[in-house]
Amino acid sequence: MLDLSDARRVMERCDILGGISEQSDCLTRRFATAAMREANTAVAGWMRDAGMGVRQDSVGNLIGRYEACDGGARTLLLGSHLDTVRDAGRYDGPLGVLVALALVERLRARGQRLLFALDVVAFADEEGLRYHTSYLGSCALAGAFDPADLQREDEDGIAMSAAIRDFGGDPAAISRDKRDPDTALAYCEVHIEQGPVLEHRGLPVGVVSTIMGQSRFDVEFVGEAGHAGTVPMDLRRDALCAAAEFVLAVEGLARADAGLVATVGQLVVGPGASNVIPGRATFSLDARHLDDAARDRACDALHKRAISIGARRGVAVEWREVQTSVTTACAPELSAQLSRAIEVVGYEAMSLPSGAGHDAVAMSALAPVAMLFVRCKGGVSHNPAESVAVEDVGVALDVMDAFLAKLVDPYNLTVDSK
Amino acid sequence: MLDLSDARRVMERCDILGGISEQSDCLTRRFATAAMREANTAVAGWMRDAGMGVRQDSVGNLIGRYEACDGGARTLLLGSHLDTVRDAGRYDGPLGVLVALALVERLRARGQRLLFALDVVAFADEEGLRYHTSYLGSCALAGAFDPADLQREDEDGIAMSAAIRDFGGDPAAISRDKRDPDTALAYCEVHIEQGPVLEHRGLPVGVVSTIMGQSRFDVEFVGEAGHAGTVPMDLRRDALCAAAEFVLAVEGLARADAGLVATVGQLVVGPGASNVIPGRATFSLDARHLDDAARDRACDALHKRAISIGARRGVAVEWREVQTSVTTACAPELSAQLSRAIEVVGYEAMSLPSGAGHDAVAMSALAPVAMLFVRCKGGVSHNPAESVAVEDVGVALDVMDAFLAKLVDPYNLTVDSK
Repeated sequence: MLDLSDARRVMERCDILGGISEQSDCLTRRFATAAMREANTAVAGWMRDAGMGVRQDSVGNLIGRYEACDGGARTLLLGSHLDTVRDAGRYDGPLGVLVALALVERLRARGQRLLFALDVVAFADEEGLRYHTSYLGSCALAGAFDPADLQREDEDGIAMSAAIRDFGGDPAAISRDKRDPDTALAYCEVHIEQGPVLEHRGLPVGVVSTIMGQSRFDVEFVGEAGHAGTVPMDLRRDALCAAAEFVLAVEGLARADAGLVATVGQLVVGPGASNVIPGRATFSLDARHLDDAARDRACDALHKRAISIGARRGVAVEWREVQTSVTTACAPELSAQLSRAIEVVGYEAMSLPSGAGHDAVAMSALAPVAMLFVRCKGGVSHNPAESVAVEDVGVALDVMDAFLAKLVDPYNLTVDSK
Repeated sequence: MLDLSDARRVMERCDILGGISEQSDCLTRRFATAAMREANTAVAGWMRDAGMGVRQDSVGNLIGRYEACDGGARTLLLGSHLDTVRDAGRYDGPLGVLVALALVERLRARGQRLLFALDVVAFADEEGLRYHTSYLGSCALAGAFDPADLQREDEDGIAMSAAIRDFGGDPAAISRDKRDPDTALAYCEVHIEQGPVLEHRGLPVGVVSTIMGQSRFDVEFVGEAGHAGTVPMDLRRDALCAAAEFVLAVEGLARADAGLVATVGQLVVGPGASNVIPGRATFSLDARHLDDAARDRACDALHKRAISIGARRGVAVEWREVQTSVTTACAPELSAQLSRAIEVVGYEAMSLPSGAGHDAVAMSALAPVAMLFVRCKGGVSHNPAESVAVEDVGVALDVMDAFLAKLVDPYNLTVDSK
């Protein structure tokens, strides 16, 4: 019989963090908000209780350190993010942080230290909800943070630099958040699958093979506002009608290419009154594909399509690339060890790609990365209905425990089991 | 040569009111806001300077009274509204209030009182921007204010009743704003055309024959939010894609029927993050036609279309009628007198329908109504580019002056010209 006490504690903590939100009626935690501060404070407390040294870095990541037996600098990074999308579920991100924390608690309960330190990282921004650019936290650790992003403003006009300062960070020192690649041994992340594959296969966990590349764009269509009652239909330059045509073009292209998923998730209409023809429509485009070249081709086709829709309708098009991540392969050797750990715990080790982006994408610039997916109900995520079984969390904990116990070459790591 | 000094003053006052806004970067004055209070204060000052008795009624309309020579109760109502759409022009509404005020100033300068009082009414809400229901001010005067509307909330959750109290009004007393139909002789409104017809015909002013009926709906599509990277295209229930299809259906239907104009002017997507499939799309529908039956048929067809789009996509549809105004005919006798006044001033008297709704629609339940349209540049309105020529305002003033001077049977009114 599986001992689920650790897993239950993880679930209880997910529930606690799920109640820490910017909005009273749903779960939303954007980067560097009061809700994120509260979440960091809660997790920092648990980290300290687990005997970890705790600090918040310049961009706002929370890092708990469980020192190596020799006090050395070599470090295995474990973690995930604490920020969320709007109206989120409670597992996307926090589960990975809290499983990592529970692993440290197990080590400590066994009086065990490893030959390398463990840094449990709770990243400050993975979803990119507030500033429309994701992986802010992991980019800082990987040394890929773009200082130009500090000028970005959120929907209330608050610059990122001001938000970071307000959060207790230091925008000028973010370059010092970068970890030394020589001591960063690897980055391992536990995360819910956010898709239906493991459930379909009846498996509690799986090993991520690759993380799909993705492109994000901000697009603006500018037509002409006018009176909804007096401007004849054939004289209109309705930005929303143009955007509607584009939204359906995105959907149509993605439906025609089995490897492509593409989404318009944000759309704002201006001026935005029922009796005014929309003069402006601003929207996001998110496109993902395992094949980077195919993704680029799809984005080019959509850009051309936006221009042709605009030209036909007298609507100007502004097309701005916000972020692109190429498809990221997880490190084969680490993934193989994760697979062996799954088998040790008694399950079939399935390998699957990730359609979702993860902090591991940014961290792959710093160190080899590996990811363990945990089955989630119906594949639903980015939704309050997100659900994970405590039994599956228990399996994930045991798998990660076995993985740490066996973590050896080619990373030249050994475990000191007392 | 036309004396334009009065018209220039009207234009200057339009400029002053155009600078009174809720937003620093554009003109927006919603019902019962601080900006409306400031606008009312400015107009009330000019009214008092013109020797008028000034009061604000329970819903928030500003009313300046120029008494009859016999001090009697019989009253001709003149006016328009001071609220605006978002990012508005400066003439839609204020021009009619300020022309009426200038007429009183002319009468006073000539030492002239009429056999009926003039009430210059600056309506508190015609556009309906804040509470998504228009004609709040004129409905109150006409006795058609619906107390159920007091429960409506604006986008900040402020109930209309609270907003009215905050504005110095009294929600419980709005029924007493109703004017006595026996003393309300007629309602005459000067307004910019908001369309291109007069400009096309080279005429400064025209007489409105009818005001197009219109229907407004709030529609909500509810699908399922989900992760933009992991939910396959064929398993999505994307509320924005459904809404996009509907927006194009609205446009297509209106393009196919020369008498119909139809607009989706507001659209809000939830949760509204670039990496989340939209689970919810909420939008407005505005449909107008001179033929009420044709408008009803069009709205029914669109409702059925929404349901069929929803059914095909697994998206639930909520369809709520917000407001319907039937096509309103202006009073033929009053309109004939307006036409004669135009000819007296020296222009061809053109009659044209209005695609835009006006306070005259609500006021027609109280008294006969007439409207004088003033040419506007390019037919542009609900847009900061809204523009009116001072010469055309001068013509409108002279026409209204001549109209008042000749206002006789069948309304049994005579003018006491000293």
